[in-house]
Amino acid sequence: MNIGIVGLGLIGGSLGLDLRAQGYHVLGVSRREQTCEQAIACGAVDTASLDLATLKSADVIIICTHIAAILPTVQQLIPYLSPATILTDVGSVKVPVVEAIAPLWQNFVGGHPMAGKTESGIEAAQKELFVNNPYVLTPIASTPASAVQIVEEVARSLQAKIYHCRPEDHDRAVSWISHLPVMVSSNLIAACMGESNPDVLALAQNLASSGFRDTSRVGGGNSELGVMMARYNRQELLRSLNSYRQHLDDLIAIVEQENWEALEQQLKSTHSARPRFLKE
Amino acid sequence: MNIGIVGLGLIGGSLGLDLRAQGYHVLGVSRREQTCEQAIACGAVDTASLDLATLKSADVIIICTHIAAILPTVQQLIPYLSPATILTDVGSVKVPVVEAIAPLWQNFVGGHPMAGKTESGIEAAQKELFVNNPYVLTPIASTPASAVQIVEEVARSLQAKIYHCRPEDHDRAVSWISHLPVMVSSNLIAACMGESNPDVLALAQNLASSGFRDTSRVGGGNSELGVMMARYNRQELLRSLNSYRQHLDDLIAIVEQENWEALEQQLKSTHSARPRFLKE
Repeated sequence: MNIGIVGLGLIGGSLGLDLRAQGYHVLGVSRREQTCEQAIACGAVDTASLDLATLKSADVIIICTHIAAILPTVQQLIPYLSPATILTDVGSVKVPVVEAIAPLWQNFVGGHPMAGKTESGIEAAQKELFVNNPYVLTPIASTPASAVQIVEEVARSLQAKIYHCRPEDHDRAVSWISHLPVMVSSNLIAACMGESNPDVLALAQNLASSGFRDTSRVGGGNSELGVMMARYNRQELLRSLNSYRQHLDDLIAIVEQENWEALEQQLKSTHSARPRFLKE
Repeated sequence: MNIGIVGLGLIGGSLGLDLRAQGYHVLGVSRREQTCEQAIACGAVDTASLDLATLKSADVIIICTHIAAILPTVQQLIPYLSPATILTDVGSVKVPVVEAIAPLWQNFVGGHPMAGKTESGIEAAQKELFVNNPYVLTPIASTPASAVQIVEEVARSLQAKIYHCRPEDHDRAVSWISHLPVMVSSNLIAACMGESNPDVLALAQNLASSGFRDTSRVGGGNSELGVMMARYNRQELLRSLNSYRQHLDDLIAIVEQENWEALEQQLKSTHSARPRFLKE
């Protein structure tokens, strides 16, 4: 089977490495000549080109561009596709992507392989990036079952854990466990930086250790990615942010009222709830 | 020099291991016979006893009990002390401890070695727990310089990084980088658990990965410790929580108004601010 990959960055490159190892013939497309060369050199693709027309012979095409580029990429691709070609994407928000692409291409299956690392670009591509990580597929009522089955087969070959859900449920779930944490964490850094006494701020910076390091990690990450989450998943992010604020108000009231039993209850309940998010 | 340690848990036991390795003679006191036996067996102390009277010959006594037990411990110790005996503690909040103990014992130096791990108790004691970690001393105007010097010498022998500051500045600084993160992180778990759609909650639990894991870590920790922080550092915690809420309100407004430039600015500024808290 021929698999096309548009966008040869961390995700596109890593997909190529694994899919080639599984015996798929991988055709890459990038906007940059240098990236094409690197992708061939590192074994992420069999062929690489700047030209979307080279994907004519692909049975499945995985769009691995930034989320904003998914729609224009599909629009440019369509003239080269046969009706049987299956399209999928790797965007981290699904409602806007599915709403934009499904009307243009019936054989489209929204996808989100949930793997990542701090580095980006083809240089960061690595084998087995998706092993044991969630790969979410978000077919809708009009998506042909055969297309879902084939994309699932490809995802399964990466040894990822496959989940199917509605685009809306995906976006709400990732808002809780991925987008909200970024905002909560960035806000922690921002609040600390707001300390008006420079001696105390310097002391805080000196005393910060693993607790601060972990809680602030995703808030100190890539700002473009953070803006993208908020732009494309704005409604769900606002919903989770407002719920977070309500819980924060309750927590502040508990501390103001010195209601230590209630505080212990909350901390015990979050202590026991956390492992449910981290099960293997 | 004889060093007494009252409370042979993770911190007391780990101090004992290192101080003995430095050639100090370490006298331990615990409330439990079994802990005394374990402390001797693992080499954390030279002698161990249930009886505070055995600390008569100590030159320096480090109170390593829970913060609530520091005052009663000092009150029970005083009859056995010579005026030259130096007392210090390891409590993670300093104003209430210093305010309670300084009037009772002039040679008292508040201390806070900032090392820890998830496990507690003498079983968790380990060598070199304090190496390269901050050890804060909080002398006040009435604290004799000689007492500060000796406690500093002991702390320095652990290869810790020594900081001196006012108890008030300590409590404000740790509120930002230690106590606030616990509340922010616990609140994240609580907000996520509040998702009313069980399918979305289950999906969120399945999709959660490293970002959620790190951001939620300290909020899923020991609930007793969390309550203790809030009880003893209530004013500073409320100050930092309220500042956090103000920043959160601003952030929510930014997302509501789709002010993506402002969001990018905030995320860029927290991206560049974070390393200042994590410098070596």
